[in-house]
Amino acid sequence: MRNAIVGEGSQIDENVLLGYPTGRKIEIIKTVIGARARIRSNTVIYTNVVIGDDLETGHNVVIREENVIGDGFCVWNNSAVDYGCRIGNGVRIHNNVYVAQYTVIEDDVFLAPGVIIANDPHPICAKCMRGPTIKKGARIGVNATLLPGIIVGEYSLVGAGSVVTVDVPSHTVVYGVPARPAKAIDELECPLNLVDRPYLEGRDVRTRERKAM
Amino acid sequence: MRNAIVGEGSQIDENVLLGYPTGRKIEIIKTVIGARARIRSNTVIYTNVVIGDDLETGHNVVIREENVIGDGFCVWNNSAVDYGCRIGNGVRIHNNVYVAQYTVIEDDVFLAPGVIIANDPHPICAKCMRGPTIKKGARIGVNATLLPGIIVGEYSLVGAGSVVTVDVPSHTVVYGVPARPAKAIDELECPLNLVDRPYLEGRDVRTRERKAM
Amino acid sequence: MRNAIVGEGSQIDENVLLGYPTGRKIEIIKTVIGARARIRSNTVIYTNVVIGDDLETGHNVVIREENVIGDGFCVWNNSAVDYGCRIGNGVRIHNNVYVAQYTVIEDDVFLAPGVIIANDPHPICAKCMRGPTIKKGARIGVNATLLPGIIVGEYSLVGAGSVVTVDVPSHTVVYGVPARPAKAIDELECPLNLVDRPYLEGRDVRTRERKAM
Repeated sequence: MRNAIVGEGSQIDENVLLGYPTGRKIEIIKTVIGARARIRSNTVIYTNVVIGDDLETGHNVVIREENVIGDGFCVWNNSAVDYGCRIGNGVRIHNNVYVAQYTVIEDDVFLAPGVIIANDPHPICAKCMRGPTIKKGARIGVNATLLPGIIVGEYSLVGAGSVVTVDVPSHTVVYGVPARPAKAIDELECPLNLVDRPYLEGRDVRTRERKAM
Repeated sequence: MRNAIVGEGSQIDENVLLGYPTGRKIEIIKTVIGARARIRSNTVIYTNVVIGDDLETGHNVVIREENVIGDGFCVWNNSAVDYGCRIGNGVRIHNNVYVAQYTVIEDDVFLAPGVIIANDPHPICAKCMRGPTIKKGARIGVNATLLPGIIVGEYSLVGAGSVVTVDVPSHTVVYGVPARPAKAIDELECPLNLVDRPYLEGRDVRTRERKAM
Repeated sequence: MRNAIVGEGSQIDENVLLGYPTGRKIEIIKTVIGARARIRSNTVIYTNVVIGDDLETGHNVVIREENVIGDGFCVWNNSAVDYGCRIGNGVRIHNNVYVAQYTVIEDDVFLAPGVIIANDPHPICAKCMRGPTIKKGARIGVNATLLPGIIVGEYSLVGAGSVVTVDVPSHTVVYGVPARPAKAIDELECPLNLVDRPYLEGRDVRTRERKAM
């Protein structure tokens, strides 16, 4: 905890390591985490990290150095965010996810369980590492694979198990291997017929209900 | 351990958390785990869980609240079972698996490493979450993806890397993206020619040998 | 630590378990790890393991029993190596990877994040377990799936999200579900135009630069 400051009202489990030193040769800067953080057991957060208020981690989470992350960040069990990422507000990363170095994730993005992100177009090459950019409000389905440097457009949805090899237009549903556009996001219907319109101007049910509150 | 009871003959490593409190607003009920549990390091089991005898966990396993699980449950390293699932007897879940909320898993099911299960047909929607149902004796291959609400029939086999988007008939081998039926389970041959009949009336070699003992 | 010996100059975090006993019935042999190991929090290494010098592990790593591993082995967060594998020198295994029992990995292999390896052609069968062989210098892309018994040839590259069901020739780029040959490794161009030749006689940029030093 020598290299980390955590805001008021935070709750931190045992066996949590904050301000963990990287093996990379960088100048050490104290990690700063905002108010009301909830950090669960066996989470490790490195030095040189800035995270906003209301952080929530699951168990066995790793957040590496040189990450800048907004408010309301949730990252669940057995997931890792590698170094050098930029992550906006209200981002939710589910279980067993890997976020590669230099990934850019804008506000309100959701990564479903098992999403794996790449950043090296021809491994191993330290020169060309470039993560994808996932734009505001986009949702990446379970076990999807994102290739280096691609852009997922605002409010789009990547289907489960997809491999995204090229840019995804905004407000679009894509799926498959490789992922291809299937329809506009607002045209998607609920297969269970439980909600009338899953997406309205790209916004999902939960986001609309929160806004209405 | 205040919110958990573990049966006789159990062996629990250090750094195990039992009866861990959920952040969801539910009435707390003590977790009850049967006899002869073997719980390995960094496993976390929440409150409001019932698990039968002979539980075995690997390391870094998370079992969330409101799960009801039968006897002989094995769940290995870095896997998580999210809340509200129903899991039968003799179920085996391998490494790096994610089981989504409200998944139903019947007796003798096997989930291979890296299986990822979805439950939200249009994320994020709290109203439509519905896990798949994996029926008795079914086997899901490595890194397969199961979509919300689908049913995998009894004694079927889902091939490695498949994305299952529709129901799988019983006693059937399916594979691919999306997964499609390839043959009856009993027709499958061993590619290594090491066993004569991999499946007999849908039962695998191990199950048949155990029954013969 | 009773069942493990670690070489000089090693640095081991708290909450690391070395020489962990397996539940399998084998004769216990002390684990031996070479010099300058860097073992991070919540790593578990079983008994009956031999690892060379300069081991580096991430957090929450599991290395099971009866593994023989060379020098310079890196294995990152939330990955597991199951029992009975043979792993050469200079092998790098990234985050959230699962290496199945009896997998053979030769020198300088790279497994990208989320790679999942199978070893049972018709689960559950204890008789036919046979891992793949990944030959010298091969690279397996993110979230790829390797089926039992296949051979990935020297210096080949398996694309992200691929499912490898048959042998991969040496010096070849393959991708897709199922993975099929696309081109010779030396013909691959950098999509970002940042390096002139990603691979030269199959060697990647990093390997060539190291050799030049």
